[in-house]
Amino acid sequence: MQDSAFIRGAVPMTKSEIRAVSLAKLDLTPGAVFWDVGAGTGSVAVEAARQLCRMEAEVMPLRREKSQVYAIEKEEEGVLLIKKNREKWVPHYGQFSVIHGRAPEVLTALPAPTHVFIGGSNGALSGIVQVVLEKNPRARLVINAVTLETLSACIELLHKFSFASYEIVQVAVTHLEPRGSYHMPKALNPVYIIFLQGGSHGDGIGNRD
Amino acid sequence: MQDSAFIRGAVPMTKSEIRAVSLAKLDLTPGAVFWDVGAGTGSVAVEAARQLCRMEAEVMPLRREKSQVYAIEKEEEGVLLIKKNREKWVPHYGQFSVIHGRAPEVLTALPAPTHVFIGGSNGALSGIVQVVLEKNPRARLVINAVTLETLSACIELLHKFSFASYEIVQVAVTHLEPRGSYHMPKALNPVYIIFLQGGSHGDGIGNRD
Amino acid sequence: MQDSAFIRGAVPMTKSEIRAVSLAKLDLTPGAVFWDVGAGTGSVAVEAARQLCRMEAEVMPLRREKSQVYAIEKEEEGVLLIKKNREKWVPHYGQFSVIHGRAPEVLTALPAPTHVFIGGSNGALSGIVQVVLEKNPRARLVINAVTLETLSACIELLHKFSFASYEIVQVAVTHLEPRGSYHMPKALNPVYIIFLQGGSHGDGIGNRD
Amino acid sequence: MQDSAFIRGAVPMTKSEIRAVSLAKLDLTPGAVFWDVGAGTGSVAVEAARQLCRMEAEVMPLRREKSQVYAIEKEEEGVLLIKKNREKWVPHYGQFSVIHGRAPEVLTALPAPTHVFIGGSNGALSGIVQVVLEKNPRARLVINAVTLETLSACIELLHKFSFASYEIVQVAVTHLEPRGSYHMPKALNPVYIIFLQGGSHGDGIGNRD
Repeated sequence: MQDSAFIRGAVPMTKSEIRAVSLAKLDLTPGAVFWDVGAGTGSVAVEAARQLCRMEAEVMPLRREKSQVYAIEKEEEGVLLIKKNREKWVPHYGQFSVIHGRAPEVLTALPAPTHVFIGGSNGALSGIVQVVLEKNPRARLVINAVTLETLSACIELLHKFSFASYEIVQVAVTHLEPRGSYHMPKALNPVYIIFLQGGSHGDGIGNRD
Repeated sequence: MQDSAFIRGAVPMTKSEIRAVSLAKLDLTPGAVFWDVGAGTGSVAVEAARQLCRMEAEVMPLRREKSQVYAIEKEEEGVLLIKKNREKWVPHYGQFSVIHGRAPEVLTALPAPTHVFIGGSNGALSGIVQVVLEKNPRARLVINAVTLETLSACIELLHKFSFASYEIVQVAVTHLEPRGSYHMPKALNPVYIIFLQGGSHGDGIGNRD
Repeated sequence: MQDSAFIRGAVPMTKSEIRAVSLAKLDLTPGAVFWDVGAGTGSVAVEAARQLCRMEAEVMPLRREKSQVYAIEKEEEGVLLIKKNREKWVPHYGQFSVIHGRAPEVLTALPAPTHVFIGGSNGALSGIVQVVLEKNPRARLVINAVTLETLSACIELLHKFSFASYEIVQVAVTHLEPRGSYHMPKALNPVYIIFLQGGSHGDGIGNRD
Repeated sequence: MQDSAFIRGAVPMTKSEIRAVSLAKLDLTPGAVFWDVGAGTGSVAVEAARQLCRMEAEVMPLRREKSQVYAIEKEEEGVLLIKKNREKWVPHYGQFSVIHGRAPEVLTALPAPTHVFIGGSNGALSGIVQVVLEKNPRARLVINAVTLETLSACIELLHKFSFASYEIVQVAVTHLEPRGSYHMPKALNPVYIIFLQGGSHGDGIGNRD
């Protein structure tokens, strides 16, 4: 989905190219319980909900999957935007909950996730990952790290917790914008995308590739 | 989908992050007629076919959409790989054709495309785009340009043909690979991703965003 | 030299990292006749003049080298800034001329250059390079291409003129800026740096490396 | 200087573009005492020595500056290469010492540095910086961080020691290499360049810019 598709205000939003790569790494499956932590405008949660709708329609004749999407956001402004984007893009998907509150505190009441995206963690990354893995040791997590400090915190996760596999990539996107008869570069800020597969090494869940 | 999911041999393959962004820009819709020109291993065609399966399942109760996927590849080795990857990943999707031959020559016999991905054009980019737009002036195209010469050829397209909107982005991906207790960068070659929406300016099809 | 060292106003300036790489590729030598075409604030010309001062001091006891620096700029505002930066940084280097006018027209009256930096060419790149090579077929040129169109024009130069060797690099710089207790990326726009060594292939001047 | 100028063997070498930016941040001055820690092939030390020769020639008539260059390297192979490159490029600069040993241990015997480049620290970064700042609290340091772990260690330095100013940049260089009639990208691995100015905040030494 394009960035312009979302109602956004002044709230920071994961850019379309980063969202596409993050969702590809997340690799949602029918029946997923998905948490979007630090959901901002809800762009990742909305696009995830749309993918889940489609997947479940595909397997529907065989068995009735029921995915759930939880968008967690501490700022009131964000909560309102997420609701608007939900209404605009997935009005008929009934299992999309918007949670107003701080992570990790509000996470403990939610059902165990199969897939988690962390777009913002406000210094509480380790606590969030801990709750996720306590709920489901085999959860699949994708984190977007913008600052160097969040990147360092992600590396520390690798020492603190056990993962069956993981992947770290930096994605740098530059838009080439028309200026008269020229195309001028406009570099977006590079983002580190960290994928973590919960589970112990040799779990047979899958290995890093 | 991960790169390791595909059978590939020595044939160059669009890397997973670039594939994810390219497919997001392509924005497939139910009932699409999709051409993958210079399909290589077929990774883009396969992932497109999987998306189309899911989308059509979603709208199936309402109307019967029938998308079609055409993977065009001039090298015999590529053709065999595409068939293997089709068999591995979308064995039940019956509308996936593998065409062995050169573009644009072999394209004229195909049904008009709604969406086109050009991963390799072998110096014939302008001829390929011409056939596409003759078949469907409102087709949606995504091109991956790796060399500077292909990038220049893409810019020339903007002068030669009329588009309702377009977008050019460069995506630079760096993998951080474990080496003992360190993570060492391994930069992939940056790729320019060009999106072109066929149609004349002010078509109301949509504007650049 | 740091960007903050220069008086700049609203005139675009080559950023310090790009200036450092460009000057390294330029590889000035004692006695050089250096043209800075589209000099902007004069940051490249000033730093070149400082390098030349030092080099010539080193060889001075042996022979008296007399380098010359010409900063060519079409905008009045730029011309004033270049003069201010010259006064600030190289007040005792007497061979630094500021030329107010358009390239390539004003170039024909200047002495043959040994080294040329082209930071801005205003659509006249090919004409500028032609004058340079007519004056000195073995001149050493470094071009900064920001837009895709200038990059394409640089590639055309390779077909239009004969060079003993050349090099094309893209340099993407991201500053990590402190924001509270975090370091937030701020991507500068990537620049293509093109080095061209005048002369015919097999000239023995040097080969691409 | 170009990479091909150096004798290198299998020892990793700072690439020319990264060397140019690192030396620009280092901003050597006449009379500098320069340490190149983890010198590898000695490319940074050699280019520094050449700059110092030129600078000192320039100020020579006024006062007699005597810079010193120390290249520290733990591997025997590197030590031999540094000596060869010293002989090739700065045979007449008599104050270039090659030190075979481990940092920080071997550093304590050296004279206090004014400028330090750390290209490799082998896990001992904090210990090296501590010795540098004990010797000269106002030393100027430039670190090249390739791995995420070295980057994290650099950020920790900011909390552990006091600096008057600092700068962190990531530099990503892509070479465009001729392949037949095309130019194909070859991305070099991105490097973080960290500049640290020893001294306390408000020292008047200079502020971050």
